[in-house]
Amino acid sequence: MSNNIVWHDHHVSKEERSQLKQQQPCILWFTGLSGSGKSTVANAVEAKLHALGRHTYLLDGDNIRRGLNAKLGFSDDDRIENIRRIGEVSKLFVDAGLIVLSAFISPFQDDRDRVRALVNDNEFIEVFIDTPLEVCESRDPKGLYKKARNGDIPDFTGISSPYEAPVNAEIHVKNSELSIDECADLVIIYLKNNGYV
Amino acid sequence: MSNNIVWHDHHVSKEERSQLKQQQPCILWFTGLSGSGKSTVANAVEAKLHALGRHTYLLDGDNIRRGLNAKLGFSDDDRIENIRRIGEVSKLFVDAGLIVLSAFISPFQDDRDRVRALVNDNEFIEVFIDTPLEVCESRDPKGLYKKARNGDIPDFTGISSPYEAPVNAEIHVKNSELSIDECADLVIIYLKNNGYV
Repeated sequence: MSNNIVWHDHHVSKEERSQLKQQQPCILWFTGLSGSGKSTVANAVEAKLHALGRHTYLLDGDNIRRGLNAKLGFSDDDRIENIRRIGEVSKLFVDAGLIVLSAFISPFQDDRDRVRALVNDNEFIEVFIDTPLEVCESRDPKGLYKKARNGDIPDFTGISSPYEAPVNAEIHVKNSELSIDECADLVIIYLKNNGYV
Repeated sequence: MSNNIVWHDHHVSKEERSQLKQQQPCILWFTGLSGSGKSTVANAVEAKLHALGRHTYLLDGDNIRRGLNAKLGFSDDDRIENIRRIGEVSKLFVDAGLIVLSAFISPFQDDRDRVRALVNDNEFIEVFIDTPLEVCESRDPKGLYKKARNGDIPDFTGISSPYEAPVNAEIHVKNSELSIDECADLVIIYLKNNGYV
């Protein structure tokens, strides 16, 4: 930070932007192993919210790793910076009044807690997509686990890099025991039960 | 970019998110010297759009330099990375269906053109807040120009770092000859004239 910055007050507030959308903005933070179903469930949740007339946006590897974080790799340092930036961008979307769905492996508890700390208490909803490693590995839609087992991909979460399961997730989804639709409903019901939509 | 990424198709499209908001999303990119009135005019434009029921978000030093780009300074390299990230985030907001107002000095033509190239032809609207250096320097609300003249702030645009005036701005605002309200109206009229709102 330098000293040649002048801070301005914003004229249109977060509350006004949220009110226009008639919703309580928040981050739905989907965490889980590669192949656990994070993006699939997040997409299904977004589709249901959109059908309800809610204003949403989905952040995942598709739009983040191709753009904002294209230069970051998968070392521990880069993973930390990756999640930090995604957290900051998610916060901007909450400030804009949207329900933002962020679907990233985000293997480290500290990183997730840092994102949680960026926003108000009720604005961060951690969704643990809890799928056993064996199931993820057996799905292996693009053969990534196979490559990781062969040592072709370094720092692969669950194989050669740790995954720290959430200790305080608001929503716990046992993906391998439910349909995609049921997984998504679990999130929608939480949002309705807690006054978000 | 690594090879351990699986791309997913997004279920809710940009068109659907825009349709819900009944607007044509775009980036309003405000560029100009420090003290030119970028943030002031952008805030006035956002207030007018909000009053019209439009879905907006404002990116400026306040929410970007404090968060996403807090670790970046004002060297040429950091300025380039600063604008690159802001461009990528602006693109995400357009994808979300919003009208995003980005107010940054953004002194280099190449950087602005790179942001322009990130989105579709009609989605980038460059707004040149054209205020003479002497006027900006005489305003100097926080004494930044004075510090820059004294050498206390290095790389200060207009003094010790170049400002490249836009060569292809869609909207040219001579801030020192108009009221804030007139400056904002110029932008609103452009948006109406061109079918954005």
